[in-house]
Amino acid sequence: MLYIDRTCGTPLYLQLYRQLLDQILSGQIPAGQLLPGSRALAADLGLGRNTVDNAYGQLAMEGYIQTEPGRGFRVLALPQLLSDSSPQPVHTTAPPPASRVAYDLIYGRMSPRDFPFSQWRKELLDVLDDESRGEINSYPDHKGDILLREQLVKELFQSRGVTCSPQQIVITSGLQGSLEILCKLLYPSDGVHAFEEPSYDRARLLFQQHSIPMVSIALDDAGALPSSLPADRPVTSVYLTPSHQFPLGILMPIQRRYEFLNWALEHNAYLIEDDYDSDYSYHTNPVPALQSIDTNGRVIYLGSFSKSLSPSMRMAYMVLPPALAHRYDTHLRDYNCMVPWLMQRTLAQFMANGHYRRLVRRLRTRFRKTHDLLQREIRQLSPDIQIISQGYALKFLLAFPPHMTREWLMDRALEQGVRVYSPERFWQDPANCPPNLILLGFTAMEPEEISLCMERLKTAWFPE
Amino acid sequence: MLYIDRTCGTPLYLQLYRQLLDQILSGQIPAGQLLPGSRALAADLGLGRNTVDNAYGQLAMEGYIQTEPGRGFRVLALPQLLSDSSPQPVHTTAPPPASRVAYDLIYGRMSPRDFPFSQWRKELLDVLDDESRGEINSYPDHKGDILLREQLVKELFQSRGVTCSPQQIVITSGLQGSLEILCKLLYPSDGVHAFEEPSYDRARLLFQQHSIPMVSIALDDAGALPSSLPADRPVTSVYLTPSHQFPLGILMPIQRRYEFLNWALEHNAYLIEDDYDSDYSYHTNPVPALQSIDTNGRVIYLGSFSKSLSPSMRMAYMVLPPALAHRYDTHLRDYNCMVPWLMQRTLAQFMANGHYRRLVRRLRTRFRKTHDLLQREIRQLSPDIQIISQGYALKFLLAFPPHMTREWLMDRALEQGVRVYSPERFWQDPANCPPNLILLGFTAMEPEEISLCMERLKTAWFPE
Repeated sequence: MLYIDRTCGTPLYLQLYRQLLDQILSGQIPAGQLLPGSRALAADLGLGRNTVDNAYGQLAMEGYIQTEPGRGFRVLALPQLLSDSSPQPVHTTAPPPASRVAYDLIYGRMSPRDFPFSQWRKELLDVLDDESRGEINSYPDHKGDILLREQLVKELFQSRGVTCSPQQIVITSGLQGSLEILCKLLYPSDGVHAFEEPSYDRARLLFQQHSIPMVSIALDDAGALPSSLPADRPVTSVYLTPSHQFPLGILMPIQRRYEFLNWALEHNAYLIEDDYDSDYSYHTNPVPALQSIDTNGRVIYLGSFSKSLSPSMRMAYMVLPPALAHRYDTHLRDYNCMVPWLMQRTLAQFMANGHYRRLVRRLRTRFRKTHDLLQREIRQLSPDIQIISQGYALKFLLAFPPHMTREWLMDRALEQGVRVYSPERFWQDPANCPPNLILLGFTAMEPEEISLCMERLKTAWFPE
Repeated sequence: MLYIDRTCGTPLYLQLYRQLLDQILSGQIPAGQLLPGSRALAADLGLGRNTVDNAYGQLAMEGYIQTEPGRGFRVLALPQLLSDSSPQPVHTTAPPPASRVAYDLIYGRMSPRDFPFSQWRKELLDVLDDESRGEINSYPDHKGDILLREQLVKELFQSRGVTCSPQQIVITSGLQGSLEILCKLLYPSDGVHAFEEPSYDRARLLFQQHSIPMVSIALDDAGALPSSLPADRPVTSVYLTPSHQFPLGILMPIQRRYEFLNWALEHNAYLIEDDYDSDYSYHTNPVPALQSIDTNGRVIYLGSFSKSLSPSMRMAYMVLPPALAHRYDTHLRDYNCMVPWLMQRTLAQFMANGHYRRLVRRLRTRFRKTHDLLQREIRQLSPDIQIISQGYALKFLLAFPPHMTREWLMDRALEQGVRVYSPERFWQDPANCPPNLILLGFTAMEPEEISLCMERLKTAWFPE
């Protein structure tokens, strides 16, 4: 029984197609049966013959019926569709975050008050309102928008002493995006990758996932130790944070930098310099990047806009030595750029018009104030807290007296509505993480919140 | 000799620091020498003592000098910095594209006239103008903006019959971004990955780069052949384009779909369904996605906004079966989402307000016209051209008479200012690509250009 409703708005052929399909799937029209001729069915239903032909055509295209010359359409047999009798895993979502958290000292998040709404809006509209731009409907340039790369050349030279050409720059969707590309670019080689211990776990992860063999390098008070690099295995790349070791905050002095540069040249290895927070040197002049003193093309410089514009924007970049930039162009030319062109071009204009420099200055002043205030409050909290990472950062790494473990500190803080963090995950071997360390990020905090937050931490950790 | 310029605007301590550094690096102040006391130097230069202390402090922090209690600062020795004597590769950029190309029949690019400027602008401003939104300065949700995922659940059910929850969706920065994640998610396994031959080379690439062993599956006129899957090796995943085989355009009929679903269940394998152009079925109803008839959680559904919004936006998504979504949450929770939150939320509102449906309808009408016009012109060009891929697409795959090779066709077309493309790269073994195939993309063409372009191709290929 077929029923066509002329008032429901659904095309007539589609109604017919769906009803026939239902009857085939349910077995009402069995496999092997011939369907009525289209002329006859059209007459029966008061439809145009075209309508029936369209419905039959759709069923034939999808493989439910097949034409037999001179006889019409015959319903085809369907294989039985098996079904899985094992229990299906139930997808459970993470529990909702505790609503009792009044202050979250998370690292990497910023306050919406720090986003440059009006300038970003202006530049965005300026880009969007030029409707003649073909870039809006094309794939972005393989390495990223050329105007953004040109702006970066200027910016990196001014702020970090980095010298490069736009051809050496690749725009990526974050540090992980950069490392994803580097894994592909560097590891046709079967050398090992060396990591500082401790180091940023979300960077380490990428090399692990690419099954690249890894070794860790020890640190002393001048940062990573070249002497702890393996002598018996070829090393292809070393991940370093020379401006401000992550998470310990050590500044690598010039002697050690020279040692690494010489070692890299002698071993034909690359130094991956992650310059993740160099905009936030509060009380001294920032130290020029390792890349700026490399004359042999051994340093790959990584930066991001997550801390100097917004982590939600997912924009970062890498500066490749000329030989690697060439390898990128030849070996990885079929990778599409992952960053929306609209965001790239807006950022390029935002930089060209001076907003970026002003924003970084404003954020530096803002975070310096929070940093200094928080540092004072931490010192007042107890003289037994050692501030490990300070003076050039967006976070504090604190060492408490040995009997105060991070679990106890985190639990007690949470009871008072403050979330603080364990730095344990930064150690490749978590057993190496001292048990009494706590990480405090402060970029999401408003200055007026600090005293209130610290009062709670005093109650939590050092009740009178 | 130190010289301080009080008029140039550079901070005094920085001038002093830079000059001292120059003299240390050039050897004018040799290693081992004591620097003058800060009080004395300040007096000599007419500076505050603080200024000198700051300059010395910076040099000490960077490791150029070291304090000796009671004696002052001593210049440290620097290791000799080695330099690479081998010739450095010169970075050359690709030659500029020939300016004589009047018509570029490239696949995947669209005209700026097709971008929905006014609605996109409106939704973007609406998102940006709410300055209270914390998301603008946080890392985006690991799987992507929840509002966008909720919109996708509705959209995919309506247009493709796909049933899923927002927890099964991951927002990515393009097809390659989706596959990058799938390589990590599926290939702790040491099974092989199976690819249609031919298939999309930029998809194959990801699996190659992850060193995943691959096998190719043969095609017949119903698409990929399950019987050509290897029986002697475990297969972990199969990449399929059932709605419209890429690039041959075959629609996989229902019997074959059932066969694949049953095979996947029996072999505990995943079917990766790339539904890349399903919005562009012009003359028939689109066939529901393979995912829509999968009751056993074996299909991973991939889609993107490159062809239904813009390729410059770099937004795509995947729908994971519940078990894989769970594995994603546990194993890959430390991957950051790569898509800017601002773009995700704007798209979510663009969909919620009905603009997306209207845009897809508008694009479908627009491309159908171009398609039909071009098809007519191709048929008029010569009866010897076989149109392989048609009726449901954004491109034509054409087979010419055997004596007309693709090189000859491309060269002759270019002489007339028209760029056409070889589909050779879609074959894993390029020798399998018939020598007389040409690919024509038409989404960047304006309708009024088609006749002019085809006249040139007539002159190129079939001169009177």
